[in-house]
Amino acid sequence: MVYTAKIGPSVLSSDLSQLGRECERMMECGADYLHLDVMDGPEQWVKPIAAAGANQYTFHLEATTNPGNLIKEIRESGMKVGLAIKPGTTVEELAPWARQIDMALVMTVEPGFGGQTFMEDMMPKVSWLRSQFPSLDIEVDGGVGPDSIHKCAEAGANMIVSGSAVVGSDDPRSVIALLKNVVIEAIQKRSLDR
Amino acid sequence: MVYTAKIGPSVLSSDLSQLGRECERMMECGADYLHLDVMDGPEQWVKPIAAAGANQYTFHLEATTNPGNLIKEIRESGMKVGLAIKPGTTVEELAPWARQIDMALVMTVEPGFGGQTFMEDMMPKVSWLRSQFPSLDIEVDGGVGPDSIHKCAEAGANMIVSGSAVVGSDDPRSVIALLKNVVIEAIQKRSLDR
Repeated sequence: MVYTAKIGPSVLSSDLSQLGRECERMMECGADYLHLDVMDGPEQWVKPIAAAGANQYTFHLEATTNPGNLIKEIRESGMKVGLAIKPGTTVEELAPWARQIDMALVMTVEPGFGGQTFMEDMMPKVSWLRSQFPSLDIEVDGGVGPDSIHKCAEAGANMIVSGSAVVGSDDPRSVIALLKNVVIEAIQKRSLDR
Repeated sequence: MVYTAKIGPSVLSSDLSQLGRECERMMECGADYLHLDVMDGPEQWVKPIAAAGANQYTFHLEATTNPGNLIKEIRESGMKVGLAIKPGTTVEELAPWARQIDMALVMTVEPGFGGQTFMEDMMPKVSWLRSQFPSLDIEVDGGVGPDSIHKCAEAGANMIVSGSAVVGSDDPRSVIALLKNVVIEAIQKRSLDR
């Protein structure tokens, strides 16, 4: 088991008039990474985002006709590769790519905007991925916060994107710590169960 | 003659990691207004932008099938109305709306990104508008800076959007003052010529 618990605040939920400072604040509060959503056109952003210093680039399986090519391009740009699926996309469609990517992202809301309700019925996708690819980073994104983190962690997600619940909190440090502890405990439990 | 010289820095040319502070800095440097570009979907942004406190809303004539309706909606939201035309659109297409709007914007680059070269061949559009609508606010946007301001001012533009030339300058205050003085002088000269 090589994956670890990581919490990534979704910075578009922050005060955009001071985005730089908000990013710093999230890192100071214990964020393991920062998650930035970019709408539309995954192919065209690979080079600019690599140049801007990102270390991972996640694209939506549904948004390209040639995932293999895009995976190659992202890797050649020096970034890790994430592959996302929307709620309506089956995890079997992602599976053929799973050994070429660093991370699978199971969307737990429809992509588009923040503040939506967590879709618990996506958890079987996460469990299946965890059972099939025990060392893969698996991320969830959408409506994840203190109320839904246990389900994500138990299903096997280890990378947690959280927007409103963390960024909009009066105490982001505590929320990040809470989310992370739940994920760490679930990882340890899985480790003992093996 | 009721219009006055106004310089509006295009804030998307600024450091977006601290957009709030950049806006304040531009106002402190003498900006008369702030210009913010929003890409696509003019109808859907009227209410959110009014709610955010904008006092003017400019849309592209090419971007809607019903300009009259949109003009009405903007006005009912409490904002002034601007109407923009791209380089390929004739000023005659704008003219039928001129008496219903507060401002006509003659684009002097193709819309899309900053740092493009000013299109001097758009100036006849400005001159024609100024001759036909002596009290209309006329704005230019695209590649306008110290090198091109004289042509804009002489043609009759009184509202000047400037991105890189102002926002990217080491001394935005001086550039704003320079642009404004050129426009003021041209207005005074036109006033004497009448």
